[in-house]
Amino acid sequence: MIRETKISRRSLVKGIAVSGAAASTSSWFNGDLARAQTLPAGGWKEIHPGVWRATIGVPEAYTPVSSRLVPPQTDAFAKLAGVDAPPLPAIEGKRTTRGCMVQIPLQPDEQLFGFGLQLLSFAQRGKKKVARVNADPRIDTGDSHAPAPFYVTTRGFGVLVDTARYADFYFGDAHTKPTHPASATADANLAPKYNDNSKEQAGFVYVDVPVAAGVDVYLFGGPDMLTAVQRYNVFSGGGLVPPEWGLGFWYRNLAKADQQDVLKLARELRDRKIPCDVIGLEPGWQSRAYSCSFVWDEGRFRDPPGFLSELTNLEYKLNLWEHAFTHPASPLFPSLEACSGDYGVWNGLVPDFAGDQARDVFGDYHGKKLIDAGVSSFKLDECDNSDYTGGWSFPEFSAFPSGIDGEQMHSVFGLRYQMAIWNEYRKRGRATYGQVRSSGALAAPYPFVLYSDLYDHRQYIRALVNSGFSGMLWCPEVRQASSEEDLIRRLQSVVFSPLTQVDCWYMKSPPWKQLDRAKNNAGELLPDWEGLEARCREIIGWRMQLVPYLTAAFQKYSDDGTPPFRALVLDSPQDKRLYLVDDQYMVGDRMMVAPLFAGEPERKIVMPQGDWHDFWTGEKVAGGTELTVPASTENIPVYVKSGSIVPWADVGLHTAAPETRRITARVYGDGSLPFELKGEHAALRLSWKNGSGAAQSTNYNVYSWKRLG
Amino acid sequence: MIRETKISRRSLVKGIAVSGAAASTSSWFNGDLARAQTLPAGGWKEIHPGVWRATIGVPEAYTPVSSRLVPPQTDAFAKLAGVDAPPLPAIEGKRTTRGCMVQIPLQPDEQLFGFGLQLLSFAQRGKKKVARVNADPRIDTGDSHAPAPFYVTTRGFGVLVDTARYADFYFGDAHTKPTHPASATADANLAPKYNDNSKEQAGFVYVDVPVAAGVDVYLFGGPDMLTAVQRYNVFSGGGLVPPEWGLGFWYRNLAKADQQDVLKLARELRDRKIPCDVIGLEPGWQSRAYSCSFVWDEGRFRDPPGFLSELTNLEYKLNLWEHAFTHPASPLFPSLEACSGDYGVWNGLVPDFAGDQARDVFGDYHGKKLIDAGVSSFKLDECDNSDYTGGWSFPEFSAFPSGIDGEQMHSVFGLRYQMAIWNEYRKRGRATYGQVRSSGALAAPYPFVLYSDLYDHRQYIRALVNSGFSGMLWCPEVRQASSEEDLIRRLQSVVFSPLTQVDCWYMKSPPWKQLDRAKNNAGELLPDWEGLEARCREIIGWRMQLVPYLTAAFQKYSDDGTPPFRALVLDSPQDKRLYLVDDQYMVGDRMMVAPLFAGEPERKIVMPQGDWHDFWTGEKVAGGTELTVPASTENIPVYVKSGSIVPWADVGLHTAAPETRRITARVYGDGSLPFELKGEHAALRLSWKNGSGAAQSTNYNVYSWKRLG
Repeated sequence: MIRETKISRRSLVKGIAVSGAAASTSSWFNGDLARAQTLPAGGWKEIHPGVWRATIGVPEAYTPVSSRLVPPQTDAFAKLAGVDAPPLPAIEGKRTTRGCMVQIPLQPDEQLFGFGLQLLSFAQRGKKKVARVNADPRIDTGDSHAPAPFYVTTRGFGVLVDTARYADFYFGDAHTKPTHPASATADANLAPKYNDNSKEQAGFVYVDVPVAAGVDVYLFGGPDMLTAVQRYNVFSGGGLVPPEWGLGFWYRNLAKADQQDVLKLARELRDRKIPCDVIGLEPGWQSRAYSCSFVWDEGRFRDPPGFLSELTNLEYKLNLWEHAFTHPASPLFPSLEACSGDYGVWNGLVPDFAGDQARDVFGDYHGKKLIDAGVSSFKLDECDNSDYTGGWSFPEFSAFPSGIDGEQMHSVFGLRYQMAIWNEYRKRGRATYGQVRSSGALAAPYPFVLYSDLYDHRQYIRALVNSGFSGMLWCPEVRQASSEEDLIRRLQSVVFSPLTQVDCWYMKSPPWKQLDRAKNNAGELLPDWEGLEARCREIIGWRMQLVPYLTAAFQKYSDDGTPPFRALVLDSPQDKRLYLVDDQYMVGDRMMVAPLFAGEPERKIVMPQGDWHDFWTGEKVAGGTELTVPASTENIPVYVKSGSIVPWADVGLHTAAPETRRITARVYGDGSLPFELKGEHAALRLSWKNGSGAAQSTNYNVYSWKRLG
Repeated sequence: MIRETKISRRSLVKGIAVSGAAASTSSWFNGDLARAQTLPAGGWKEIHPGVWRATIGVPEAYTPVSSRLVPPQTDAFAKLAGVDAPPLPAIEGKRTTRGCMVQIPLQPDEQLFGFGLQLLSFAQRGKKKVARVNADPRIDTGDSHAPAPFYVTTRGFGVLVDTARYADFYFGDAHTKPTHPASATADANLAPKYNDNSKEQAGFVYVDVPVAAGVDVYLFGGPDMLTAVQRYNVFSGGGLVPPEWGLGFWYRNLAKADQQDVLKLARELRDRKIPCDVIGLEPGWQSRAYSCSFVWDEGRFRDPPGFLSELTNLEYKLNLWEHAFTHPASPLFPSLEACSGDYGVWNGLVPDFAGDQARDVFGDYHGKKLIDAGVSSFKLDECDNSDYTGGWSFPEFSAFPSGIDGEQMHSVFGLRYQMAIWNEYRKRGRATYGQVRSSGALAAPYPFVLYSDLYDHRQYIRALVNSGFSGMLWCPEVRQASSEEDLIRRLQSVVFSPLTQVDCWYMKSPPWKQLDRAKNNAGELLPDWEGLEARCREIIGWRMQLVPYLTAAFQKYSDDGTPPFRALVLDSPQDKRLYLVDDQYMVGDRMMVAPLFAGEPERKIVMPQGDWHDFWTGEKVAGGTELTVPASTENIPVYVKSGSIVPWADVGLHTAAPETRRITARVYGDGSLPFELKGEHAALRLSWKNGSGAAQSTNYNVYSWKRLG
């Protein structure tokens, strides 16, 4: 379905933000505290089933919701549990010297999650977080490639503060001043400040929105957290379903690789029986890349059509790296010049992706020159911001012809850039699945997966777990490794993630041939690389075997907003143990994954309530318990709910290979949880009754039933 | 001299910021880009000799300069070299959707330094930095305990952007969009983005000031960088001179220590012949500390007057730790309640230190209850902000009765807090020298030294070097150590710093008895601790021997604004090698220090031009060269200019001990650089001619001349 673009409540006309409602009539600037005033409380108005909006003051014209390009998936709201009344009373706020502030009630026992892609923390209660886009966040401030001004609470609802400003969220750490003597506590003068219990008191989430004279707040009812997240995703436009090839294995080449190098590697993967669907090229494919020309480099790629045709013959899809900053020598430059920001990046133009014109010009070029030539997907780099990485991006004080400034643009740049590309595929009725380094509010429908130049394995898993709260997908890609164990553990994790990629942009050979970057590039291969390759081949094979199961999980995402990858606490919100579990996650409706991390002697696994089985062996595992598995555990710990039926495909060398249609149905426990996949071209239903299985399938061949546990 | 407090250009009346000039008449809010407009260029108006001001738009009422509490040291401007004309043309700026922006021209070959206390970088060209107060900055964003919106350039002038907002400074990394095709460069598609040469192009320093509809910019002429820094310090009110005891050795006790523990330690230092002037207490002295009561804990300190009297008998000064957040049980609470912010911290009041009332109430209590009782100095903790440390401080949207908001308050809180305390000493005609965790613009006159909970030795030295650009002082205090070498290297550094402190707030015994924190607290002493103690005793002795030299350096700070501790590039701005030297520094007018760092096999030392001598041996060292010294080097590498005479006192157990008046004059080279110290109670002039020395002294006894090199 092509979902068409409309700005719902306000419109952007000829490059200037105009809005009757938004026009401020009072003098309001210059930090004058006397003008600070409490605003009328915002009552909740239901705008979709279980979705309410409250308006505090006069919101800005340009916000994530006002500028949305994908409408809500209205037909899906009916699939969600009903909520009769807004789960919060009318909220209060005020104008401040600096913008506006809204306060959202907080209960003592409430825990908060979300805020988009967060690498550094999970439960957010007691923290101050800023919704500010930045590359490579190395401290837990909220800054992220893809923050979202959205959170969900254990009270079973979600809150979106609809702003493209760098809003500060005080998640229970701010309190009005004391008025009464507090009771004495033992040794109060030595109480460690961070144990301060005021963070657990009833109070408010305060949201400090700069610049704006008001803000809309959206409330997503549950009754439980998962339903609140689903409702947010449905409101966002519904979850995506990747093309099947997107769920295969991806390999990115050395940045300097030329046409022959890439084809050699592509053939080697086929020869070595490493499954692979997507070959990715890094900056070297372009004649200019910092900034970008979007033109093939004639030296490295002498025959792009021949190159693409050869890749197609080998059954690969091609993904091209780029960023949006457009070099003066690019053929795109002349037509982008009038629809770009007033500041440049790396001496390139910054396309005004908030405006139709820049998206159309940029997209049209990509469509005609690259997509029509056979490029299946793009990796959209550098579209975040650079406060932590040297300050290379466009300033917040930039102005764009569409009427927004640099701060607002940073908040939406990643998502609007995605639309410029995605729209070209939509026009052509083709599916895509790409990578992107920034995203934001209302991201669920966009067929792109986030990544980072950071590389800590635990942070990567936390990012995966957190992204599911806010309609985002994350790729914990594999690059170099500090040991064989590290390579294996990372590869095992990425196989159970939205996008399975080994990214060798700075390495000549796959990491299984040499883990160390310098030696890899010097051509020194590990003496026993074939053994390591065999282990990796098997793990990549798992990914191929998982594709039908993952496809079903994504279909549910698209159907009712259920995140395909998500924190355990979403499925079992009543289990407070799970409030702190940021290194295990659900995949689909029945599978739970607990990655291992190289160098750790063992790991603890928190089993949610219910009966479970070890996915690999079928062994029964009691829920509500804690396990400890040693570092010697061979396979990544994966558990399935008792009763599960899981389709397990044969391994093909790419997702369109005939082997991938041959299914073994794995049955755990009593087999009471049938499996269902309803694809456009392929469907599969597996059920189990009285000791025998029944399969309905289109384009699948269920040739084996395997009882486990 | 008591310098009295006045807000110069604008006034704050009854808690509301009012200013005819600052009243904005246009509707200006809500991020409306159509309202962005270029402002009239700001012409330079000379307000002091060599100091110009340009006004862009309508500045805010409350700024570092408008709210200054110490006037410029007007008589000292005449001591500086003259500058005929402003070194910059009129500057331009504009209103933006978010506040205002000013642009200050930048030449291709220009390098920039300063921005207050910076731990993570030195030369600032090409970076984006925010002037935002935060504790424990762990990434190089500008955030700091004590940022200052001030920088100096190798073109020989300084720039202060007078705002208490979190302004972003783009130090040459932002450029307007390209309009012409750029020339091709070899392999342009693989150019590492961070080598982008646009950062070296002519352009502007852009300063993005939020909220404000305009801003004043102050320009400090040179003609050289050092003079520009002196002029900024003189404008700030002139540099401080610490009391002599402040330049002795400081020891801070375990937080939980009681009266007996502290006295025992104090006697032990005397018994073991470890020189010490100041004993510091940590939170345990108070009955409540998070938040603070400012009342002695009766359990730990049963007899505060007896305790103080005993310390005085032992010739110690007492320093008390505190922070400003006031517990409901504090006797200060009732009188502070009406003059505090609307949000609390750790369930305590936030005093409105921007207002006279809170400073007076807070100061008066400290004066009568603690200073009059004999407390010589305070350590003012937690007065920065907490974006990187868990979000415990007051929100930026706080409002204060004096008429400013939380963002502005964070920018001035440290400095205004210092005034609340310092003023009580000034009233009493007593000198103080304290510690503080935050400071800001115009800090030079304030008798406080900065510190951090961070602990990287290289960062500590960089902080020391950087602080001298902006009228700040930094203490690279010693706590635990990872090895004996680490302890020795840290102690050698802190001896050549503004404040020599070993901070044992989390350790029972001095680190020379046990380096490791856990073992130290378990009472496990190093088997050979007496040997290590002896090494430390000698190094602490150096500090005592340095006091006359340091006193002279501080007198020059007070006399003409010359920073007593400063980067080499300030003394030799023409030597481009020094643009990157952030681990060596000048002390006074003739001494250069190059600390060693444990674990590094050797270190490179860049010798500035001129003839030098090894301070310890007198050996000649050629200037304009580079040396390498091995890790085995025993003493910290210190060099003096050839011709220097350096007074070297005998070691007393405290700075008032008679030994400290006995001076050896160390003469290097031809002795052509006489030494002069003009103290109120002690003076010393040392000169050398025709092979013999001449001394004039008051309260000093020059008993030995030592020729070196």
